[in-house]
Amino acid sequence: MNVAVVGATGYGSAELIRILERHPHVTLTQLVSSSQPGEHLGNIFPHLSHLSFELDEIDLDALAEAADAVFFAAPAGVSSRLLPPLAERGLICIDLAGDFRLSGDTYQEWYGASPPPEPWLSQAAYGLSEWFPSSIRKADVIANPGCYPTAALMALAPLVQEGVLDEGTVIVDGKSGFSGAGRGVKQTSLFCEVNENAYPYKVGQHRHTPEMEQVASTLGNRKQSVLFTPQIVPMSRGILVTLYGRAGDGWSTSRLRELAEETYRDSYFVRVRGEGRWPRTKEVQGSNFCDISYEWDERTHTVIGIAAIDNLVKGAAGQAVQNLNLRMGWPETAGLEMPPQYP
Amino acid sequence: MNVAVVGATGYGSAELIRILERHPHVTLTQLVSSSQPGEHLGNIFPHLSHLSFELDEIDLDALAEAADAVFFAAPAGVSSRLLPPLAERGLICIDLAGDFRLSGDTYQEWYGASPPPEPWLSQAAYGLSEWFPSSIRKADVIANPGCYPTAALMALAPLVQEGVLDEGTVIVDGKSGFSGAGRGVKQTSLFCEVNENAYPYKVGQHRHTPEMEQVASTLGNRKQSVLFTPQIVPMSRGILVTLYGRAGDGWSTSRLRELAEETYRDSYFVRVRGEGRWPRTKEVQGSNFCDISYEWDERTHTVIGIAAIDNLVKGAAGQAVQNLNLRMGWPETAGLEMPPQYP
Amino acid sequence: MNVAVVGATGYGSAELIRILERHPHVTLTQLVSSSQPGEHLGNIFPHLSHLSFELDEIDLDALAEAADAVFFAAPAGVSSRLLPPLAERGLICIDLAGDFRLSGDTYQEWYGASPPPEPWLSQAAYGLSEWFPSSIRKADVIANPGCYPTAALMALAPLVQEGVLDEGTVIVDGKSGFSGAGRGVKQTSLFCEVNENAYPYKVGQHRHTPEMEQVASTLGNRKQSVLFTPQIVPMSRGILVTLYGRAGDGWSTSRLRELAEETYRDSYFVRVRGEGRWPRTKEVQGSNFCDISYEWDERTHTVIGIAAIDNLVKGAAGQAVQNLNLRMGWPETAGLEMPPQYP
Amino acid sequence: MNVAVVGATGYGSAELIRILERHPHVTLTQLVSSSQPGEHLGNIFPHLSHLSFELDEIDLDALAEAADAVFFAAPAGVSSRLLPPLAERGLICIDLAGDFRLSGDTYQEWYGASPPPEPWLSQAAYGLSEWFPSSIRKADVIANPGCYPTAALMALAPLVQEGVLDEGTVIVDGKSGFSGAGRGVKQTSLFCEVNENAYPYKVGQHRHTPEMEQVASTLGNRKQSVLFTPQIVPMSRGILVTLYGRAGDGWSTSRLRELAEETYRDSYFVRVRGEGRWPRTKEVQGSNFCDISYEWDERTHTVIGIAAIDNLVKGAAGQAVQNLNLRMGWPETAGLEMPPQYP
Repeated sequence: MNVAVVGATGYGSAELIRILERHPHVTLTQLVSSSQPGEHLGNIFPHLSHLSFELDEIDLDALAEAADAVFFAAPAGVSSRLLPPLAERGLICIDLAGDFRLSGDTYQEWYGASPPPEPWLSQAAYGLSEWFPSSIRKADVIANPGCYPTAALMALAPLVQEGVLDEGTVIVDGKSGFSGAGRGVKQTSLFCEVNENAYPYKVGQHRHTPEMEQVASTLGNRKQSVLFTPQIVPMSRGILVTLYGRAGDGWSTSRLRELAEETYRDSYFVRVRGEGRWPRTKEVQGSNFCDISYEWDERTHTVIGIAAIDNLVKGAAGQAVQNLNLRMGWPETAGLEMPPQYP
Repeated sequence: MNVAVVGATGYGSAELIRILERHPHVTLTQLVSSSQPGEHLGNIFPHLSHLSFELDEIDLDALAEAADAVFFAAPAGVSSRLLPPLAERGLICIDLAGDFRLSGDTYQEWYGASPPPEPWLSQAAYGLSEWFPSSIRKADVIANPGCYPTAALMALAPLVQEGVLDEGTVIVDGKSGFSGAGRGVKQTSLFCEVNENAYPYKVGQHRHTPEMEQVASTLGNRKQSVLFTPQIVPMSRGILVTLYGRAGDGWSTSRLRELAEETYRDSYFVRVRGEGRWPRTKEVQGSNFCDISYEWDERTHTVIGIAAIDNLVKGAAGQAVQNLNLRMGWPETAGLEMPPQYP
Repeated sequence: MNVAVVGATGYGSAELIRILERHPHVTLTQLVSSSQPGEHLGNIFPHLSHLSFELDEIDLDALAEAADAVFFAAPAGVSSRLLPPLAERGLICIDLAGDFRLSGDTYQEWYGASPPPEPWLSQAAYGLSEWFPSSIRKADVIANPGCYPTAALMALAPLVQEGVLDEGTVIVDGKSGFSGAGRGVKQTSLFCEVNENAYPYKVGQHRHTPEMEQVASTLGNRKQSVLFTPQIVPMSRGILVTLYGRAGDGWSTSRLRELAEETYRDSYFVRVRGEGRWPRTKEVQGSNFCDISYEWDERTHTVIGIAAIDNLVKGAAGQAVQNLNLRMGWPETAGLEMPPQYP
Repeated sequence: MNVAVVGATGYGSAELIRILERHPHVTLTQLVSSSQPGEHLGNIFPHLSHLSFELDEIDLDALAEAADAVFFAAPAGVSSRLLPPLAERGLICIDLAGDFRLSGDTYQEWYGASPPPEPWLSQAAYGLSEWFPSSIRKADVIANPGCYPTAALMALAPLVQEGVLDEGTVIVDGKSGFSGAGRGVKQTSLFCEVNENAYPYKVGQHRHTPEMEQVASTLGNRKQSVLFTPQIVPMSRGILVTLYGRAGDGWSTSRLRELAEETYRDSYFVRVRGEGRWPRTKEVQGSNFCDISYEWDERTHTVIGIAAIDNLVKGAAGQAVQNLNLRMGWPETAGLEMPPQYP
């Protein structure tokens, strides 16, 4: 199958290329960039200079000719414009940006922009692979989840589906490596500003908040609010999410672990950690794994859920490929069997 | 004034020496080490090889001869044994370990060991400098707070004193640089295990939990439970604490900031950050500052408090010296005026 | 083909497992550890807990039964003892330690121990894949090069083979990430000791020195001394080597680059960088690539050669697999096609 | 004494402010910025938000009114223009840029711009404090050395002064933390590009080369060429320099150390390391120390000199203040007694 990537100059794209180049069922045929068309990939990403790609200008017909599926790894707003005409031409479209993740109203509220046009928005499947496989298998537009929501929901979903948590008590405390901020150039992104630093940003205002709420509400069959605090920690890759929710009597760490093991029994990419052994971002680095564990705090009747992913793999490019695998009926792990890179 | 340090081979001691060497009212006369007596300081800490100290064996009489005040920077349990005889000999004793921070019962419960003997335990002042200055000024035994409790309580104390938070809803999510783990040698402390890694540890079980609860309960005049999750992030110094607590109607980010500014109006070492400008650990690095800010999340009726300190300075050695300053009636900032080191 | 790894608890082993697990022609059948036999691999390396290996005690007959080839990733001295009996049993033996790299006399001099027994030492091929493919193809004992020598020789070999450099003028300045130090537990290996630190060690005394000299002398057909300075820089992976050598008239940066391009024209894993674009360790991270470039300094008549590798891949596990590929007549890149992981 | 800083928004300035704020004989009266005049210092550098400075536009008369000495921490070229009129007004001028370091011809050749006007260029003293104290004491214009030249020359100067090294054999291999690149915004300066990366840049072309040559030639009384390779390693602060030079018979590591100890006997800021204990950048971090050591490699008749400094302190702001101290006849260590910050 021929695939293309639109928005080829960011870290997410580099990761898509890393994965797609070795995928057994896929040939990467086109890399599209509006910012640097005509440039050699090796000049954008010297680590990929052994590949001979040249970036192309966007040309919908050429792209539809060259590819059967397209990944959008462009900034918010681009896929709203470019995805519909390509979906119309029959391409499978997987969007790594936020455009197709939310209901139109919620998108308008949190992004301050018009949502993408119908019928595409409604047709889009939310690509949290382990939770919505049947809609993903049928969809031609797949909205790949955000990095924080992926980590948060992998730990939160079993709890809300089971109705474990008291309404309105969910807090998600996220810590992310800096690659999540992308390759854009700002003073606050300089090495010396980030190195040896830990800090929160967009407290209570991050756009991944409504994404978590929407999916948690869907799975729990009732409105679920989420308070979300994103934080930067000084590393390149990895998201660690610690979530908190109040629960009634009768829980224990082992019961929570059983729930997780039961839920993810057939999910290759989810590793439920044993008691007293919590996820670490380095243990999933470079892989599509999501490691999770739970702890019951009897003193405060709180469930603590912990999840670790590589934000560029399970949090972006890896899950996007996992979704293509689902959509195409290939083994879910095709092209994604790389173990974590350690140390 | 002559001062000594007991337990001279850890990171906290290095920091004490860095500060005491430049303190205008203090002469450092003795460094005591049970593990490496007779060793030159420069062999333990080559960065201090311009100083000509030699480590001494513990000898209570010699120590009482050499010093009028003593800092204990030794592992838990050491000060329980060595502090009482030195306090008896009239020395001002400042303990950086946990021995004298908790009530006897709580100590027994969380440390699994007998608490230090009376009357010393009862006489010990809790050395959170900004909150207990009057008892510190009179005390001959000062229990310097833990690093996490310092950061957490600096943000939590104004809230509980004012009764802002609903009972039993306080969650403290802490992120720490690795120097908090000390200089002990373990596989999990190797560079390659910590670098590019973020992970929780001792979830719900960390000994700093009862310390936060005890102080919050005292200041709030009612039992206050705290759920505390410590986490490692890949940097040497710094603690970032994000705390969450439910509150009733009528709050706002600006009202919370006013409360903080009011509370800390005369506290040189507390910098209340403006709206939308949250604390960053790098902005306090190497200094005794504690930067804090609050956010009100109207959607979930939650107060978010954020505090950043250098775990080795305000979280350990710096606050210990601040307490000596208080005790001696010196300016609170004596020897502690160093600005943060950036970047 | 069934393969085994002896010495399964170090970083080199983790990397071998990462690569061998995905190798198209290989099944990993046994992991041997003398330090932790019976342990689950996932307890040694939680990032590999999705694999179900258990570490085995060393048992030569069982190993010979289970595997046709064996990688030794154990500390110096182990393969001297264990490799001969396995080679005798007909296994292809690839040693990642230094035991079989040097002539007996040189080994004795630099390692202060008896060299491994004959005929095995003499039969061992030096596994610098690009330079000794014909002897590797025939060898049953392959001495995989050290990490520094790999990087240094990839840049040095074209120069000495061509007789570019003046005798006795070669200086190799090496910078290494910390994983080269292994997973052993020492105070100097703690995160806080290595983070934000750069320093030399074993100046003029590192055991990789005679290895560089021996190979350079062989390729240049005359005795070639090398002065080598190893240095630690604060990262997990990667070696950057900067080498210097005097040369006569008539050289230029472009002539040097042509020489490199000519030499490595058929070497997939060597990427010669263009003028003004020097190798960076991050651009080879996680891959088997060696990026190199040269600069001619007309002012001092000096050739500057620069090479970057991932010390655990091309500098250890990756090249070991490349050598197995050569030995077996498989494509040189089998199992090694993973692009660098960036960022 | 009142002092001002011109160019107040870079890392060098932050460091100047850190030091000057605590200097016993100095009052910092003005911070000048052409890029952000009118801005509060705390908005440029939140870590300094406890200070109440506001940045001023450049106004020569106002500056001459406000200050008796001025530090230039602006980009190359600025002091050429602004320093002469201020020197004319009688201010002591200390320039941290490269404008006044080189002879006019050499400046023109390496900077591709006209050198600053006479008589100021000729009157400028080269501010390598330990080596040119008498000219610094008399100068009204002091050209503070570059960061690499400071480290390199502190190790090189004793050798060339004594005539130890063979002509034309000096190689300086420098490794720097990233703060040396300044706070300017470029894609290659992003955290994710620098983290976990080591690489050379401007090989054989760096402007610090002629600075090293000029000073080495002066001290050795003969033309001394230097080959210099700068390299980035992933840390914020610190420069490690490894230099190589050939020498005749009769040297040894201990003789070299004696030479160094003799040379620097009265230099508080130079710490000569013992045999087998080489300098580490972290051991000077935050301080004005320069740690050095030498090694004699008998096999290749090469002297290896190693020096470590904090590039922002001894390599910039600290040495600038040291020079002011010399110029004013204050103790050389005034305001500079801070020990290294470790870890």
